[in-house]
Amino acid sequence: MSTAKKLEPASRWTPPATRFVELHGDYGTTDFHMHRGGTLPEVVVAYESWGKLSEMRDNAVLVFTGLSPTAHACSSDEDPSPGWWEYMIGPGKPIDTDRFFVVCINSLGGCFGTTGPGSANPGTGRPYGLDFPDLSIEDIAKAGHHAIQELEVDHLCAVVGSSMGGMTSLAYALQYPDEVGNLVTISSACRSLPLAIAMRSIQREIVRCDPAWEGGHYQPDKEPKDGMVLARKIGLVSYRAGEEWNQRFNRARVESGRKDKNRFGIEFEVESYLDYNAHKFVDAFDANSYLYLSRAMDWFDVADHGGSVNAGLAKIHSIRTLVVGVETDILFPIKQQEEIYNGINKAGCDIRFVRLPSIQGHDSFLIDEANFAPVLREFFTGIG
Amino acid sequence: MSTAKKLEPASRWTPPATRFVELHGDYGTTDFHMHRGGTLPEVVVAYESWGKLSEMRDNAVLVFTGLSPTAHACSSDEDPSPGWWEYMIGPGKPIDTDRFFVVCINSLGGCFGTTGPGSANPGTGRPYGLDFPDLSIEDIAKAGHHAIQELEVDHLCAVVGSSMGGMTSLAYALQYPDEVGNLVTISSACRSLPLAIAMRSIQREIVRCDPAWEGGHYQPDKEPKDGMVLARKIGLVSYRAGEEWNQRFNRARVESGRKDKNRFGIEFEVESYLDYNAHKFVDAFDANSYLYLSRAMDWFDVADHGGSVNAGLAKIHSIRTLVVGVETDILFPIKQQEEIYNGINKAGCDIRFVRLPSIQGHDSFLIDEANFAPVLREFFTGIG
Repeated sequence: MSTAKKLEPASRWTPPATRFVELHGDYGTTDFHMHRGGTLPEVVVAYESWGKLSEMRDNAVLVFTGLSPTAHACSSDEDPSPGWWEYMIGPGKPIDTDRFFVVCINSLGGCFGTTGPGSANPGTGRPYGLDFPDLSIEDIAKAGHHAIQELEVDHLCAVVGSSMGGMTSLAYALQYPDEVGNLVTISSACRSLPLAIAMRSIQREIVRCDPAWEGGHYQPDKEPKDGMVLARKIGLVSYRAGEEWNQRFNRARVESGRKDKNRFGIEFEVESYLDYNAHKFVDAFDANSYLYLSRAMDWFDVADHGGSVNAGLAKIHSIRTLVVGVETDILFPIKQQEEIYNGINKAGCDIRFVRLPSIQGHDSFLIDEANFAPVLREFFTGIG
Repeated sequence: MSTAKKLEPASRWTPPATRFVELHGDYGTTDFHMHRGGTLPEVVVAYESWGKLSEMRDNAVLVFTGLSPTAHACSSDEDPSPGWWEYMIGPGKPIDTDRFFVVCINSLGGCFGTTGPGSANPGTGRPYGLDFPDLSIEDIAKAGHHAIQELEVDHLCAVVGSSMGGMTSLAYALQYPDEVGNLVTISSACRSLPLAIAMRSIQREIVRCDPAWEGGHYQPDKEPKDGMVLARKIGLVSYRAGEEWNQRFNRARVESGRKDKNRFGIEFEVESYLDYNAHKFVDAFDANSYLYLSRAMDWFDVADHGGSVNAGLAKIHSIRTLVVGVETDILFPIKQQEEIYNGINKAGCDIRFVRLPSIQGHDSFLIDEANFAPVLREFFTGIG
């Protein structure tokens, strides 16, 4: 196992408990071949893991993240800080690390340790930037698959993902249907609809319009932060907006000391919330990674795996599946969860669909423990 | 009547049939006093009109627009080009110009002929820019009221408005409850919720981040077009997104000749749609007007007129009212239409509420003639 190997991180920042695994390419070469063409001569995947791999090597659960998080999904002795899914993963928790060997990976193309556009291009020694090849959700799934193989796991007990990670889980199941026992997709989609494509397109254009982006060749200390802050604010609207904000902010104003003197600046609490959270994100995230991951979501289409969405989903017929969606999600609306369910169900799969009334919109899975924890607990308890 | 007076337009562009009326101030001065403080020494209001004022001067209908349109709501001999509400206003149409004298005004603060931040400040001879005082929805209503008085109308048969214009109609009814017989608000709100405030806040920040904005002191030939294009794209998402786009664009790609070579550029039809429409808007709209009108919507709150929303709405108790909303509207959701209806209804008003299933979202009133025309026709036919 390569878990002990401590490689040089491919990005500026990784959580302390991150491990790195070097992939060994495919098709008998050392190259990693990308779904839309092009290759990467070296791929390192950053991950964290919790629990122990069983002697039978049959209890591994792979977690794919949404666009933003690191691989630090939950705390550990090595890194006691709370992970992004702290309530879900751990001893005695719904994804029970007393029982399962849980691995969360940082997506290919990302910036928290896994190879991405911010990584050094071995050919030049400088960051790839836009020389990084087209990135697909299928590539992220494949990098996860190869990483799991390096960890000497040939068959996953389960693959789990939310948002972009849900797409990645679907891509994993589509590409390796015989190597997965259980599948969980949360607030995900078979393919992006125009609203989601439009919002991401605007976000990308804002980053690209920031003069500091420099056509993708910005220096690490001169990033397009203004563009990234604005892009993230749009993201936050699409992730959260709605009834939760009505209850939480309504029309509350910031205290006079925090009010912007400019009449167009921060005055309402919701404006302050956006500003605080967008800056927090931008300090940690690479702009080119953002662009690549964003476009990968636009491109993903289950119909590419069989000619139609249902033909693609039919490949998942032998995997026990849980589809979870949230009624207040505007980015990946509940109808898209129904589409996943209906397609797999038609293929005769052991599948359940849970529609949650969470008020936090797309991001509910990060916050709404009361609704989400019992659903995943039941599904994982039912794993034979 | 000042209708014949052809004043110098206050902005670079006005539709050909635009008329101008100079207001004569208030409180016995020639100054126009603003709701949040400050004054304008001169105010010109641009408008168009159709039909004839009756001898009794009792058939005037005042139409307030949303943020974007000019006063050219419908065609005429003088300007046969279709107006923005062509299906609604005209001889034999729902708002029947054979029967009513219909006036549509360009909002105070706008850029299609009415005084706004792009107008010359009489004190300096240069455009106001950010020296224009804070703009409120109440000011737009008051400018409409004073303009109507200049046209020798003391009592409106009806005031009508959609989107921001619906807020303005409410502000009109709140400020002059005894001078209005009928009120129509369409896809409007008593006050903006956090989602709407957030989206507008991001739009404003994008414009302000454009270096060409120059702190609001851009030259007319060097406008912050990049920022305005992006802001408008966000607007288009909030105005339209959803099921209509799913049906119209789904995941269609642009023809190869129109595809951007950049992997992050225009590839999907929805991206092309946004780009085309945003550029069309930006060529005609002034950036500072956009900022002022946008913030005015954030600030508007019926509760400022009596201590609570319902106390404010109770002032409208003697006006026959129609409230229309659309189920797919994400910017001014149907719940906000119910809020208007419930508040006025509690006060014992003659009021009706129509909930339409249009799939075009917030902008449905511009497009969905089949649903909207019968509703307004019935209401206007019922005017005694």
